[in-house]
Amino acid sequence: MTKVAVLGYGTVGSGVYEVLKKNRDVICSKLGDEIQVRYVLDLREFEGDPVQEVLVHDIDVIINDPEIAVVCETMGGEHPAYEFTKRALESGKSVCTSNKELVEKHGPELIQIAKAHNCSYLFEASVGGGIPIIRPLRTSLAQEEILSITGILNGTTNYILTKMETEGLAFETVLARAQEKGYAEKNPDADVLGFDACRKIAILTSLAYGKKVNFEDITTEGITAITDVDFAYAKKMGATIKLFAKSVKKGDRHYALVAPFLVGQDNPLYAVNGVFNAILVNCNMGGETMYYGKGAGKLATASAVVADVLDCARHIGKHLDIRWEDTKLEISPIDGAVRRFFVRVSTTDRAQIEKVFGEVEMLPGVADGECGFVTEEMTEAQYREKAEAFGGVLSMIRVD
Amino acid sequence: MTKVAVLGYGTVGSGVYEVLKKNRDVICSKLGDEIQVRYVLDLREFEGDPVQEVLVHDIDVIINDPEIAVVCETMGGEHPAYEFTKRALESGKSVCTSNKELVEKHGPELIQIAKAHNCSYLFEASVGGGIPIIRPLRTSLAQEEILSITGILNGTTNYILTKMETEGLAFETVLARAQEKGYAEKNPDADVLGFDACRKIAILTSLAYGKKVNFEDITTEGITAITDVDFAYAKKMGATIKLFAKSVKKGDRHYALVAPFLVGQDNPLYAVNGVFNAILVNCNMGGETMYYGKGAGKLATASAVVADVLDCARHIGKHLDIRWEDTKLEISPIDGAVRRFFVRVSTTDRAQIEKVFGEVEMLPGVADGECGFVTEEMTEAQYREKAEAFGGVLSMIRVD
Repeated sequence: MTKVAVLGYGTVGSGVYEVLKKNRDVICSKLGDEIQVRYVLDLREFEGDPVQEVLVHDIDVIINDPEIAVVCETMGGEHPAYEFTKRALESGKSVCTSNKELVEKHGPELIQIAKAHNCSYLFEASVGGGIPIIRPLRTSLAQEEILSITGILNGTTNYILTKMETEGLAFETVLARAQEKGYAEKNPDADVLGFDACRKIAILTSLAYGKKVNFEDITTEGITAITDVDFAYAKKMGATIKLFAKSVKKGDRHYALVAPFLVGQDNPLYAVNGVFNAILVNCNMGGETMYYGKGAGKLATASAVVADVLDCARHIGKHLDIRWEDTKLEISPIDGAVRRFFVRVSTTDRAQIEKVFGEVEMLPGVADGECGFVTEEMTEAQYREKAEAFGGVLSMIRVD
Repeated sequence: MTKVAVLGYGTVGSGVYEVLKKNRDVICSKLGDEIQVRYVLDLREFEGDPVQEVLVHDIDVIINDPEIAVVCETMGGEHPAYEFTKRALESGKSVCTSNKELVEKHGPELIQIAKAHNCSYLFEASVGGGIPIIRPLRTSLAQEEILSITGILNGTTNYILTKMETEGLAFETVLARAQEKGYAEKNPDADVLGFDACRKIAILTSLAYGKKVNFEDITTEGITAITDVDFAYAKKMGATIKLFAKSVKKGDRHYALVAPFLVGQDNPLYAVNGVFNAILVNCNMGGETMYYGKGAGKLATASAVVADVLDCARHIGKHLDIRWEDTKLEISPIDGAVRRFFVRVSTTDRAQIEKVFGEVEMLPGVADGECGFVTEEMTEAQYREKAEAFGGVLSMIRVD
């Protein structure tokens, strides 16, 4: 029997408790071992909830119990999650977490501590919720040189964009509805400005190349400037608009970007709608593979934490290695990245447009006094120069 | 350094050699160990090919070399692959294979032999080519009760159906072109009659529930009866037609089926086109996850074999357990499976149709003297009775 402690009885923590309880028999038969939740740590009381029987308020009880082999850190935030994780690992207990902030900030250090104490630090649930992506990157794709990772990594923004597309509504209208339904936070900045997706692509890129990506180095644009007019153009092109978190290796250079992209129907990410997430990984040998599922939600996230618990239970006393050095992976300035750009300007004069932007593909107009076009391939720096020379544009969306 | 032998220098075997050679540095840095191909076994000579340096013609050389830790069985077919695999495992060498036939026939036995000799029998490449699906089922989803698996598991049929849809061509026309291009075999039966997909869903279902599914127990229909008229109706419904290999758990019953299905745009498998494959897995906790990629092809398949090699190299002297007992998983007769049916009949008389089929959703006609409709939910047995009572139908496609 493997004995487990859960830190924090919030959304994810109570989900972990539920998954381990409800799927006890399945887990036992597949693992050939029973997983028992011995402690749940929370400051609160939960009268009438069976969790009360295993509830403790003091982390020392868990750290000092030599029978606890695995700790699920589902508290979130940096402190005291960081200190608790460190203490657990230092006493040889593996830690499985959904805490993206902690992983992004302290991943390499915590992996090293785990290694030194023959236990593991696993974090499948920190990116993509219930989608297996961390483990495939570490195992199924370990033989591959990863050329690019493109993710729809934030369910809130994907829900908003999907609704804007299917119902022709404005960003603000959909956001307000999403907030009513609890799909978006009262303060939605972390989602709609792209910060959440940015942290996640920083983690995935770090794992793909074994070095540390600082999320501050990643150019990040949100979806707040996207309008129904943009979607009307996208529709004319048989495309849609998605918030992509993208990381590309070109020769020795790494580019990373979070921004809305125009996505054609031949892209497998085109059909990823609503709160679903997906990650498309392009490799030099096996080509493209994609991983799709629920990017958030209590049980999906908890299920991913429990998958890590089972992995730890299978390898008690052994460190499951994740290559992630504490040296910085240099992210090149986005200026050098080459692509096509969809642009809207407040004129319909093709000659005037092509004088500045070069040859473009004009699109059928969808609003008076303006037009949209797609440029040929150019660098981000070249595009910016041209847009400035033109005296500004109404909107620009990158083309995938 | 981990020393490896490759059995068979055909498409997949030469791919394995290529992946290990080209990605030597990447592999070495991610694994922290070098993988060296020490032998390639083939009856033929390959003058001028560097493989010649490591070419051997006698399996005993490999079996008797104690330094060989991992054997890649990329010969295909049952014999002598079975005997070679057994001998390798019995001498403590892990075996990684792309041989779906062997896995389907002898999987449980070979896993037991591996277990007894502290080595592993891994077969990621046997289903879904380069798509990680076997490992996710074994690890990432081990905590889940699997409710259903729906796969597009055969690239040839998916290519044919995609072409029929996008170009409005007849099955025979597209098949002939696919044969010219080498996308379909001279004798295409294994693909177009669904047998290949059937073996693959048998393997996936076995792994999902830990018991042996006989592929002969799975009702299997191919795509040879699908016409351009069926696609015209599908289009009117905003749907498409895909060959699904499906396995569903309903209470204590298991149903399995390979057949063409009408698939709506809200299904993530809708957008899986051409030679791509994908597998949608529905679980009781984490919900739906999907895995997408190249289902065949030299390098994609080889890459999956090499992923297994790396897993073995990480766990030398240890058995990586795959729960797959040699007891039979009972597949219930398809008669009891409940769903809706799309039906075409050679009349347009709604009253006549509803007298037999009950209330139906009539579809706008696409050809003279016939019509199409979708039934309410009923069992397969009920549908068959009704179709007989009606005096036969022009075509029937199940609705997903």
